[in-house]
Amino acid sequence: MERIRRNERMAAMMSVFTREPNKIFTLSYFCDLFGAAKSTMSEDIDILKEVMRSFGIGSLETVTGAAGGVCFRPLMDKTAAYDYVAALCEELSGKDRVLTGDFLYLSDILSQPEIVTTMGIILAGEYYDSNPDFVLTMETKGIPVALMTAHALGVPLVIARKLSKVYEGSAVNINYVSGSSGTIENMSLSRRAIKPGQRALIVDDFIKGGGTAKGMVDLMREFDVTVVGMAFVMATANPEKKRISGEKALMIMDMTGTEDSVAQVKPAKWLLEK
Amino acid sequence: MERIRRNERMAAMMSVFTREPNKIFTLSYFCDLFGAAKSTMSEDIDILKEVMRSFGIGSLETVTGAAGGVCFRPLMDKTAAYDYVAALCEELSGKDRVLTGDFLYLSDILSQPEIVTTMGIILAGEYYDSNPDFVLTMETKGIPVALMTAHALGVPLVIARKLSKVYEGSAVNINYVSGSSGTIENMSLSRRAIKPGQRALIVDDFIKGGGTAKGMVDLMREFDVTVVGMAFVMATANPEKKRISGEKALMIMDMTGTEDSVAQVKPAKWLLEK
Repeated sequence: MERIRRNERMAAMMSVFTREPNKIFTLSYFCDLFGAAKSTMSEDIDILKEVMRSFGIGSLETVTGAAGGVCFRPLMDKTAAYDYVAALCEELSGKDRVLTGDFLYLSDILSQPEIVTTMGIILAGEYYDSNPDFVLTMETKGIPVALMTAHALGVPLVIARKLSKVYEGSAVNINYVSGSSGTIENMSLSRRAIKPGQRALIVDDFIKGGGTAKGMVDLMREFDVTVVGMAFVMATANPEKKRISGEKALMIMDMTGTEDSVAQVKPAKWLLEK
Repeated sequence: MERIRRNERMAAMMSVFTREPNKIFTLSYFCDLFGAAKSTMSEDIDILKEVMRSFGIGSLETVTGAAGGVCFRPLMDKTAAYDYVAALCEELSGKDRVLTGDFLYLSDILSQPEIVTTMGIILAGEYYDSNPDFVLTMETKGIPVALMTAHALGVPLVIARKLSKVYEGSAVNINYVSGSSGTIENMSLSRRAIKPGQRALIVDDFIKGGGTAKGMVDLMREFDVTVVGMAFVMATANPEKKRISGEKALMIMDMTGTEDSVAQVKPAKWLLEK
């Protein structure tokens, strides 16, 4: 095999790391892949670290210990994240997006791969230190952003269903009160999906009253799972007090006091907090 | 700004290309990003092309014309793709995955970011030349793999719903016959989701009789959209004749004639075809 030059190794390593975020790769893995010495690989990693920093791609974390190595965490710096979300808010604030009943048309934004990838990176950035074992979402609209958050965190996605399905096997069903309509709804999750003692990050597209989110928290309690955080694409300004607390939403929507039913969508303040 | 060296540029370019597959970047974009001359960037791209080829990452396509530039297409070579799917089949063929009623538990596989990313790359590889404008799926289980196929193709994902929802605006509803149960089902898609004259690639998790797939084809006809292909994660061996034709599935499942309800899951033959 021809000797692989540094510039080729750098490109290939970038591909390896970014394809599987938050996964630990040992130095030996790269030594074998490139037929290079450990000292050479350490130098490569230092250069790569600096490229990731200066181009706003993410960070390379060195993990020590027996299972140690290097892992990549996609990250967006606070200002870039805020600007990105602010531009989306601008796009959502147009009159043509308001539907009958003051609903906002969001579906296109929520299933654009490029947009949900970026949202996933921003949300994941808040929860690396919480070490979730999986991301939980409730079908349907939040699945893409939840998947990309799970991808950035390097963990599986688990999808709760409205009804239990034969192809999910035996399931845990709970009832919850929909925060906005006050009706009793059902939520179901396969017994096989998760293990007791795991840690969940809840990710969904929308939070208004917080009934569905509280349902997911209750569901996790049934599985003996700890909820380490709750993240949403959009929260409504009202009601201010939700059925859950501690959640983070990328955008806040205010439909009250607006003329001509124009939605006021603003980026959340925590995006700029250190 | 300090001069950016080739090995740094190579790593940064790999990140730019892989983050937005099938999107055309002009040479000028990279010249501006790195403060480098066009001739230098052309050399960089030639090296990157070779790295992508030799490490099985994908291809860099040069697009000529006024809107020309270079775009990255993630690709897996035939043998690697077949081996990957064969390993998944092995995992799915265990007895512990068969549920009551001979259903196969697939949900964990279908929402593992790493797995659906790879499946998306394999499926997208079959449809770059068909130039779809979007990927269409029907909620719920196929959403992750459909999203990652859309990501590789650089197009949006569109999700058809079982019922029309207030937050989707005015919608087109159709009825279809479920291929397996023979019952009449409903499928709904927002009028805003797509434009007449566009081209759709249908991606879903499972095909048995093909009723749902035929429903999606009928739905596209209502929107004046051409279906360029249909791709699935899993097809059942029976019925051999589906309500649609021309579909590609990664795996074929045969539950007939097996003892002890062990599923026979095999990689599709087209995976190895040139």
